[in-house]
Amino acid sequence: MSTLFRDVLVLDGEMERGRLCSVRVGDGRLSAIADRLEAEPGDKVINGGGHKALIPGFVNAHTHAAMCLLRGVGEESPLKEWLEDKIWPAEAKLTREHIYWGTKSALLEMAANGVTAFADMYFEMDAVVEASLEAGLRCAACRGIVGDDEEKLKDGLRLAETWKDHRDMVSVQLGPHAPYTVPLPTMRKICESAAERSLGVHFHFLEAEWELEYLRDELKSSVSEYLESSGLLDVPFAILAHCVWLDAETVGEVDFSRMTVAHNPNSNLKLGSGVMDLRGIAEKTKKIALGTDGAASNNRLDVWGEMRCAALLHKGIQRDPTALSARDALRMATFEGAAGLGFERCGLIREGWAADLVLLDLDRPHYVGIDADNAAHFIVYAGSSADVCGTMVAGRWIYRDGEFPTVDRNEIVARAEKARADLLS
Amino acid sequence: MSTLFRDVLVLDGEMERGRLCSVRVGDGRLSAIADRLEAEPGDKVINGGGHKALIPGFVNAHTHAAMCLLRGVGEESPLKEWLEDKIWPAEAKLTREHIYWGTKSALLEMAANGVTAFADMYFEMDAVVEASLEAGLRCAACRGIVGDDEEKLKDGLRLAETWKDHRDMVSVQLGPHAPYTVPLPTMRKICESAAERSLGVHFHFLEAEWELEYLRDELKSSVSEYLESSGLLDVPFAILAHCVWLDAETVGEVDFSRMTVAHNPNSNLKLGSGVMDLRGIAEKTKKIALGTDGAASNNRLDVWGEMRCAALLHKGIQRDPTALSARDALRMATFEGAAGLGFERCGLIREGWAADLVLLDLDRPHYVGIDADNAAHFIVYAGSSADVCGTMVAGRWIYRDGEFPTVDRNEIVARAEKARADLLS
Repeated sequence: MSTLFRDVLVLDGEMERGRLCSVRVGDGRLSAIADRLEAEPGDKVINGGGHKALIPGFVNAHTHAAMCLLRGVGEESPLKEWLEDKIWPAEAKLTREHIYWGTKSALLEMAANGVTAFADMYFEMDAVVEASLEAGLRCAACRGIVGDDEEKLKDGLRLAETWKDHRDMVSVQLGPHAPYTVPLPTMRKICESAAERSLGVHFHFLEAEWELEYLRDELKSSVSEYLESSGLLDVPFAILAHCVWLDAETVGEVDFSRMTVAHNPNSNLKLGSGVMDLRGIAEKTKKIALGTDGAASNNRLDVWGEMRCAALLHKGIQRDPTALSARDALRMATFEGAAGLGFERCGLIREGWAADLVLLDLDRPHYVGIDADNAAHFIVYAGSSADVCGTMVAGRWIYRDGEFPTVDRNEIVARAEKARADLLS
Repeated sequence: MSTLFRDVLVLDGEMERGRLCSVRVGDGRLSAIADRLEAEPGDKVINGGGHKALIPGFVNAHTHAAMCLLRGVGEESPLKEWLEDKIWPAEAKLTREHIYWGTKSALLEMAANGVTAFADMYFEMDAVVEASLEAGLRCAACRGIVGDDEEKLKDGLRLAETWKDHRDMVSVQLGPHAPYTVPLPTMRKICESAAERSLGVHFHFLEAEWELEYLRDELKSSVSEYLESSGLLDVPFAILAHCVWLDAETVGEVDFSRMTVAHNPNSNLKLGSGVMDLRGIAEKTKKIALGTDGAASNNRLDVWGEMRCAALLHKGIQRDPTALSARDALRMATFEGAAGLGFERCGLIREGWAADLVLLDLDRPHYVGIDADNAAHFIVYAGSSADVCGTMVAGRWIYRDGEFPTVDRNEIVARAEKARADLLS
């Protein structure tokens, strides 16, 4: 069974311009791309008629999916109060069942918003992986590790072992929480374990300004010294979430080549954390991806929204309308995320690459005038996730015109409602 | 013919919390609001079943609707180059016909995004007003005045005369463009004319930082001196668009009580203009509304998006998660806009007020957990204009479940495509 898209405007984050062409999907991959492909037996044909676009699936490079159960809890509180009085007491009640249904509910949102892969740091991660496999998204999973907790590290390593045969859909990392919650010797041990077993690491890094003081006063380290002494630079790859207070100079001082920055612009704004120096960091590394963070601090699981926010925000902050091009923003939202999560040949529209795709409806007034040359501008600046009419992962539709072919949408919503009521009772 | 909404979650920008209740609409007004209203003969009943919300229509307090025809033109160029090389040559070709169809196309977008009223500064404004009346939105129209042009002022005054009998749907202002394009004596004459005829003024003010230098060096004025000497403070009401470089202290120094600031956060970011001091200004005046600006510099005509952007952006810039509450953002996006445009008893959900409403579909995973207490948080932070399932102005549906009952959507899109092709050929 294959799918043939005809007369669709194809664009990815590395193409100079869009291309009106045909794309065949077979065995989960992009099997052919050409100006015009004829239908073959077994093809399910989708005629775009020039009014559909095909872009790579969005990748959510940092989230805590099940936190959608705590959306809107303790809004507009200072961070410390929000965590200590609202979020942590509710999280303390979380069971595997809650996390399973919370994740499934988050995946409904993400699928409808064109997200095809996500990096999740939470706990009861087998439930997260199961939910993800059932829904059909690619998942980069890590068990969050806080403190000097040998058991959590073991659980993280066990998670990797459990899911190693699903490598095309599941990528497991080790998940130390943050510099200030994981003692340095534990951090070193985690990074050594990751290096030994060829695992990545997913880590919150410099989200809040006081983390700089923590490194300086408690650990007597500069940021580059911390990156080096923690062992982070020696792991096969790492997702560094937030990096609001990461200085571009630091990126130039160390071997940052295996690091991917997961930029979460809306969460960083909403929590009052600040604005990452995207332009400075982008001069040192192309490996910047986009994340939503959890729905308790964003509150949308919409990478398209992060893409647009990033593209606008940095122009405003830099006072320069040429900062962060639409094409670069699209590349960050797709390819850089997929690569950063450890999924290979994923995130661009090229023959042989993964068929992780978003089908867009261009037959809308805000797309009047879109063409091959301006497609990135229209999609990033004028479009939104409301234009998604289909989301496909590995050749399988996970969202199509309001329906979710892989899951029982109504059951999930009902279960998520019940889980939320449990947690907040 | 009346409409009865039952079992809907009602929220406006002044309610402490949402209310699950019934709302009857008759003769273009909210004729009754109660816990439960029984259907009467002639009622068209919409049962929310607790899964629909009703909020006031969004007001776009600053735009140039027909510029949607130039969306995506000259993207990512510095402002001067963008205007001089791209926008102005295309604008020079604009005819009344183009502006009519361009406006109609923009109104499709706005209606689908829940916008019920808009303030437009452009030219061929009769075409804008006609388009707006046909589509069914409320329009605050002004003819843009650049230079020392007696004819344009006359045309602005004539516009007011022409439409004075449509005062419930059409509010006409005088439209001096900006301090640097309108000589001070002309500005004074415009403001005097406005005061004499009880007209408002719609004006671009301090969008770019260099305007401060212009006031200081060319006009030898501080900002408050300019506000006073221009006559702006003496007009019945004024919409001051942008105000990116307006200092909160200045607002406290003058009688700002008849001014409404139209904050355009996404446009200001995209053009690299900067970020308005919303918190400082809000300490001096509640009259802050939201605008999209034209679609050539945003590029979405989506006030919900501006509302969310404002609510997040100022938290991030102020480094304070308590800055700009969701409720205040909703009030800015609705009531403050309506009042600022000169539409009375409009923008709140109260008996006797205008039936300008947005019906929202809450049966979506991102609304799991919404209730009367957290409704503003869910709608502002987690929602988006994609949740709009109906937009009503003065009791008449202008958008409903993907359809536009007042206009021929396909004709408009085809005409807008043709107009764009004309302009860019």
